[in-house]
Amino acid sequence: MTHRIAIPGASLVEHESISVEGDEAHHAKRVMRLDVGDAVEVLDGAGGIASCRILKCEKLGKREGWRMEVVPERVRRVPPITPHVEVLSEPPKGNDLVRMIDQLSQLGVARWSPLACARSEVEPRAHKLDRIRRTAVEASKQCGRAWALEIGERIAFEDALRAEPGTRVVVCHQNGGAYRSTSAERVRLLVGPVGDLTEQELQAAQAANAEIATFGPLTMRIDTACCAASAVTLASL
Amino acid sequence: MTHRIAIPGASLVEHESISVEGDEAHHAKRVMRLDVGDAVEVLDGAGGIASCRILKCEKLGKREGWRMEVVPERVRRVPPITPHVEVLSEPPKGNDLVRMIDQLSQLGVARWSPLACARSEVEPRAHKLDRIRRTAVEASKQCGRAWALEIGERIAFEDALRAEPGTRVVVCHQNGGAYRSTSAERVRLLVGPVGDLTEQELQAAQAANAEIATFGPLTMRIDTACCAASAVTLASL
Repeated sequence: MTHRIAIPGASLVEHESISVEGDEAHHAKRVMRLDVGDAVEVLDGAGGIASCRILKCEKLGKREGWRMEVVPERVRRVPPITPHVEVLSEPPKGNDLVRMIDQLSQLGVARWSPLACARSEVEPRAHKLDRIRRTAVEASKQCGRAWALEIGERIAFEDALRAEPGTRVVVCHQNGGAYRSTSAERVRLLVGPVGDLTEQELQAAQAANAEIATFGPLTMRIDTACCAASAVTLASL
Repeated sequence: MTHRIAIPGASLVEHESISVEGDEAHHAKRVMRLDVGDAVEVLDGAGGIASCRILKCEKLGKREGWRMEVVPERVRRVPPITPHVEVLSEPPKGNDLVRMIDQLSQLGVARWSPLACARSEVEPRAHKLDRIRRTAVEASKQCGRAWALEIGERIAFEDALRAEPGTRVVVCHQNGGAYRSTSAERVRLLVGPVGDLTEQELQAAQAANAEIATFGPLTMRIDTACCAASAVTLASL
């Protein structure tokens, strides 16, 4: 497999060289031992995949590390995965959040955002969100996602029930029915907190015409519930 | 939620007291601070759930720790989850295996066994299998599984294709078709190694009439693939 380099927001134009610095340059040079003439793939995280050759490789200094110049020989544009699956949940504690973002990336989920429920306990810190943005970019390289998983802002449960038109909103809950497959292009999955959704929240979901569905016979931890619901939604076409 | 105690193979008979020792007794007494008269649930890992009261609680000694006598007031027998889903895969490396067993337990998978493929790299050591048996028991308590996830012996890919009658064998592969839901009572999911299945293995799967199915649009790590395939299989009734 060709080594992948992620440069979110990079401009990918055939024959116009791209500068690669920092960790990506260090990893390509020192870990993968790539050098001038070798092939790499550059992902812009927004559907662009450029098959490149390394044109130049130089050491800027001890602190600055390495810098590469790579030239796209061919640029492909890949459409986003359908349906567009968005997951909103309380952030699982500790390292489970990072691992969940990695798994959701591999599953093909488009976006994850922290969900604020009445019984939510965990509010993610800014540095944690930065860390999982990096996780999402790393996961994209590993599983070859042309579109990186987006990390959204925290949103209140009641607001999350109101999605843009054409979106199917599904509340994952142990007492729900079996998930019904959909032809909707956008699916929003809401996973409640450890302490469960309140009666009031479930009523609000019904009033907003959200589907209340269960994705397994047992009580699942948040990260497992998010993965199960995503896998089922993306497989039910 | 009533505190759960797992005693694999315990005999659960109403009014016949059960002895609880070791970690389970220590955890109930010292962490959960339970004592005589408190309610606990004892799981035998084979469908039995006993609602008990603590009758006695004594310290055996510094090394031996605590011992409890609990009395079942009511014993329920719960049928196994259907369909009976069995997952066979190369063991993910390091701690990923432990985490995967935990997730598969929550999803309702009945059994996991290590799979030996032509390109397999990892053969799990005995102490690792012991560790994940404990993980499966712990997970049962957390998600309230009456039947603990079983850990099977290592089996060769070609042998795994031959399952007992009434079992649907599904090979999870990136180039497969969409999974077709089944009314089979038993489903066996085979997930190939990091280096992929060989052409010969895929041909053997076809010759054995196994279904070759994909469970997501991207390349997944082994643990994610096992979870996705299990979630979809258990949700497709």
